[in-house]
Amino acid sequence: MSETIFSVVHKDASSKARTGIIQLPHGPVETPVFMPVGTNGTVKAITVDDLHEIGFQIILSNTYHLYLRPGTGVIDAAGGLHRFIHWDKNILTDSGGFQVFSLAPFRKITEGGAKFRSHIDGSYHLLSPERVVEIQSILGSDIQMQLDVCTSYGTNYKDAEKALIITDKWLKRAKSAWEAVTDDGIYQGKLFAIVQGNFYKDLRQRSAELVVAADTPGIAIGGLSVGEPFEVFTEYLQYTTALLPEHKPRYVMGIGTPEFILEAIEQGVDMFDCVFPTRTGRNGLLFTRQGPITIKKGKYEYDFNPIDEECTCKVCRNYSRSYLRHLYRTGEILSSILASYHNLYFLHDLVRSARRAIQENRYTSFKKDFLYSYKSGTSKNE
Amino acid sequence: MSETIFSVVHKDASSKARTGIIQLPHGPVETPVFMPVGTNGTVKAITVDDLHEIGFQIILSNTYHLYLRPGTGVIDAAGGLHRFIHWDKNILTDSGGFQVFSLAPFRKITEGGAKFRSHIDGSYHLLSPERVVEIQSILGSDIQMQLDVCTSYGTNYKDAEKALIITDKWLKRAKSAWEAVTDDGIYQGKLFAIVQGNFYKDLRQRSAELVVAADTPGIAIGGLSVGEPFEVFTEYLQYTTALLPEHKPRYVMGIGTPEFILEAIEQGVDMFDCVFPTRTGRNGLLFTRQGPITIKKGKYEYDFNPIDEECTCKVCRNYSRSYLRHLYRTGEILSSILASYHNLYFLHDLVRSARRAIQENRYTSFKKDFLYSYKSGTSKNE
Repeated sequence: MSETIFSVVHKDASSKARTGIIQLPHGPVETPVFMPVGTNGTVKAITVDDLHEIGFQIILSNTYHLYLRPGTGVIDAAGGLHRFIHWDKNILTDSGGFQVFSLAPFRKITEGGAKFRSHIDGSYHLLSPERVVEIQSILGSDIQMQLDVCTSYGTNYKDAEKALIITDKWLKRAKSAWEAVTDDGIYQGKLFAIVQGNFYKDLRQRSAELVVAADTPGIAIGGLSVGEPFEVFTEYLQYTTALLPEHKPRYVMGIGTPEFILEAIEQGVDMFDCVFPTRTGRNGLLFTRQGPITIKKGKYEYDFNPIDEECTCKVCRNYSRSYLRHLYRTGEILSSILASYHNLYFLHDLVRSARRAIQENRYTSFKKDFLYSYKSGTSKNE
Repeated sequence: MSETIFSVVHKDASSKARTGIIQLPHGPVETPVFMPVGTNGTVKAITVDDLHEIGFQIILSNTYHLYLRPGTGVIDAAGGLHRFIHWDKNILTDSGGFQVFSLAPFRKITEGGAKFRSHIDGSYHLLSPERVVEIQSILGSDIQMQLDVCTSYGTNYKDAEKALIITDKWLKRAKSAWEAVTDDGIYQGKLFAIVQGNFYKDLRQRSAELVVAADTPGIAIGGLSVGEPFEVFTEYLQYTTALLPEHKPRYVMGIGTPEFILEAIEQGVDMFDCVFPTRTGRNGLLFTRQGPITIKKGKYEYDFNPIDEECTCKVCRNYSRSYLRHLYRTGEILSSILASYHNLYFLHDLVRSARRAIQENRYTSFKKDFLYSYKSGTSKNE
């Protein structure tokens, strides 16, 4: 059996939610945890000092992007990604598979791997399961993801099954490669397998069984939050999570709104990431406990209140909605800096509150109360 | 005689350079001083925490921009510019005159004032000398500038003289308005007059005499560093500075390169501002003691040294040229953040070193040594 990196600390009495701790090479990570995304080796518009200040113990970065630019040669010579970007806590890297599907102008999937053209300079590349493990070990990722075949919402059964079969073959190869690369104990990153199966329950079950059998340190649920209705997301999240063992961390990729995060936590998911808080922040959408607000609106011109009265972040302590609206309208970089900081702080705080609610066996009412205010507040009246 | 806000602390034995202290409503300012520019109420890509960390005691902001957006109504309701932008040290605002000349798509100068169209929405506005004083007092500027008529390098004698005459009339009106607005002691900002006269020595002299007679707390030298050759800049700077009284702070507007700053200090100038360090930083030009470097160049791909070995700023302590090149090439906002921070820190440190050299009567050799390295170093070999 693979090494145990996860311990459940407390299970909520009112739901499947749980708190836990993941032990990783760059320190422990308390779960449930939201991981901000640093695609190119920086969380956009945020310094590592700010990440420390907010309290993040892990961030995500993108193998596809870093592999293409600056390239693994540069990061290897720098002594790994942590040193390159000056971040001494944990880094999870994705496999690059999703970006091959969403960004590359050309791609061809064979059993060998994913051949694609770079969206930057058009050059050809092949990412095999083994190469992806190697790249992530050069990066020094604390958690690395297997290469998988992504399918979109609406994919037919046959294609979804084909993707599942290749993903499973790639998992076995990834695991062998990962065992080889960690054999000497110098690189200690943990491999996560990915459950696929699109929106077909028998395929989800089959994929989950294969993933469980592969016995990697952690398990991700892929192919959710890809455009399906919220109810479908919930249904498949619940269905898939129930197929996974209790003692391994569960990671749902690409969810970043309070609604999706709170739902995932309720189903017993431990980890999630998304560009949503930073991307929408740069576009002037700011989280509040009464729902998100669009800061450019005229109603905030003379509004000298903080973004969120209850928020204790430095943006809310020091700046008014009026000033933030002004920064957004004048296109100032400080607008992106402050909005990203606040949105990340808000989500980090939400997840911390969720952890506390789980400890106190009141997660269901916590979630209900938060979403009642979040969905009925300012955003409805804007 | 007007109130004294400036005291000379030490005069360099080898040049006209001097150290001093300006007493302002938001604390003392040690001179010589470089003031970063926060056009829209933020120094671009820099937080106020960073400004404090570097050690700035005064920043500049632009009346023209703030008057148009968010408008004086908003800043007034916010309780002034300091509270609006959350900056508790000093702010100098320009008069808006220069922006009317450089940005407005239409402008007409009469004795009454400068009529112009907004570059943002095309609306018509009139800035009179009195209105400009009023706006700056609403902003709560610690130093406010009189409205003046700017002329470009190459303006003929007659037009330069005409501009000088109007500028003088506006000065007298500005001074009356400023005396009225400070009469109750609530607003305590200091008015600076501006010497014009283009590149005609007799006009410079006439303007200087009028300015000296007006007896404002401080004096600016306008119309320099507007595209003239360095030798012409030096000649007119030297000529004009010699016409000014010793006991008032001297401010040269719009200079931000080490060469121009060190030259100005040598001529006894106390204050300067420029967007240069932040604007060029955003464009990937980074100051080093061996001259500026263009970070995007291929030679920095595997360069894991800091921007400047001798620099003690947090960017140089924590990040490599290789990483900064990567951030620049990927268009990351962090590139602008780190480059702006380093360039401002570098100039602040340069001016602090200049102050120390003046105290120790070795300014001339300090300047010579710095420029020898700066001009013969990396930038030449890039």
